[in-house]
Amino acid sequence: MKTMDEFMEHTIQDLYSAEKQALEVMPQLAQRVQNDQLRQAFQVHQRETEGQVARLEQIAQQLGIEPDGETCMAMQGLIEEAQDLLSQLEDGPLADAAIIGAAQKMEHYEIASYGTARTLAQQAGQDQVADLLETTLQEEKSTDDKLTGIATSSVNQKAAQE
Amino acid sequence: MKTMDEFMEHTIQDLYSAEKQALEVMPQLAQRVQNDQLRQAFQVHQRETEGQVARLEQIAQQLGIEPDGETCMAMQGLIEEAQDLLSQLEDGPLADAAIIGAAQKMEHYEIASYGTARTLAQQAGQDQVADLLETTLQEEKSTDDKLTGIATSSVNQKAAQE
Repeated sequence: MKTMDEFMEHTIQDLYSAEKQALEVMPQLAQRVQNDQLRQAFQVHQRETEGQVARLEQIAQQLGIEPDGETCMAMQGLIEEAQDLLSQLEDGPLADAAIIGAAQKMEHYEIASYGTARTLAQQAGQDQVADLLETTLQEEKSTDDKLTGIATSSVNQKAAQE
Repeated sequence: MKTMDEFMEHTIQDLYSAEKQALEVMPQLAQRVQNDQLRQAFQVHQRETEGQVARLEQIAQQLGIEPDGETCMAMQGLIEEAQDLLSQLEDGPLADAAIIGAAQKMEHYEIASYGTARTLAQQAGQDQVADLLETTLQEEKSTDDKLTGIATSSVNQKAAQE
């Protein structure tokens, strides 16, 4: 990898792999959820993630690259960790709190990664690509905030009683 | 895992493992850095992380648990990904940009994880523990901001010329 273009290609492909892995694991996590508000947030985020995958395909097209090509090892680790934790918990408030925590770790991976990609695109003069990445970045931040809200407003209080 | 206390224990031990792994990999990353400002930021963050490890030991003592006991698989994935990416890059502005990106992903893992732990501690009535976690959380956010500043002010502009 010797040029900024190659580095951008790697970054977009890593994100594409991360989003696709997240999309696959989300229904597994949602299935374990007991809290209605949290289940609904997962359904909304699932559709949003489908849009983010499509946006990455659009970006890849604009950059003249393939979206496939990398396996995001960090997301693999995050998912493994979430699955391991959930295997130790029965469905209920504690599992709901753990699911929120796991989802927020995934969100934060994406926040860091989209942030880097957006800044690189801006500085490479790829304004349209930067705007698309910024749109997803804001969605991820808003999902993270929403999850914090659900945790503090209901889930964690019940979990604290366990 | 059936109680909030057990869940907190898991969360603190996971963070302890994450910080210790980060502490081990930081000198490896710093060694590759060409940009002076970035190298200095790594040195500062290294010392800060040592303080964060000590803070987790203090928290563990207050909770009456051992800090050791978990292996943070997500941090393993993040480090593997960083090492894989850096193995494809020669030292220079692109590698510096990649190192910032990798460090910010680690920071964001910790931001999500300390955020969850802090909120859980608050709701379990562990105010002192919550305060200690909040202190580290603010340090992590400030490191993340500092890295964004270094990326946008100098590193990425040079990387964009590659």
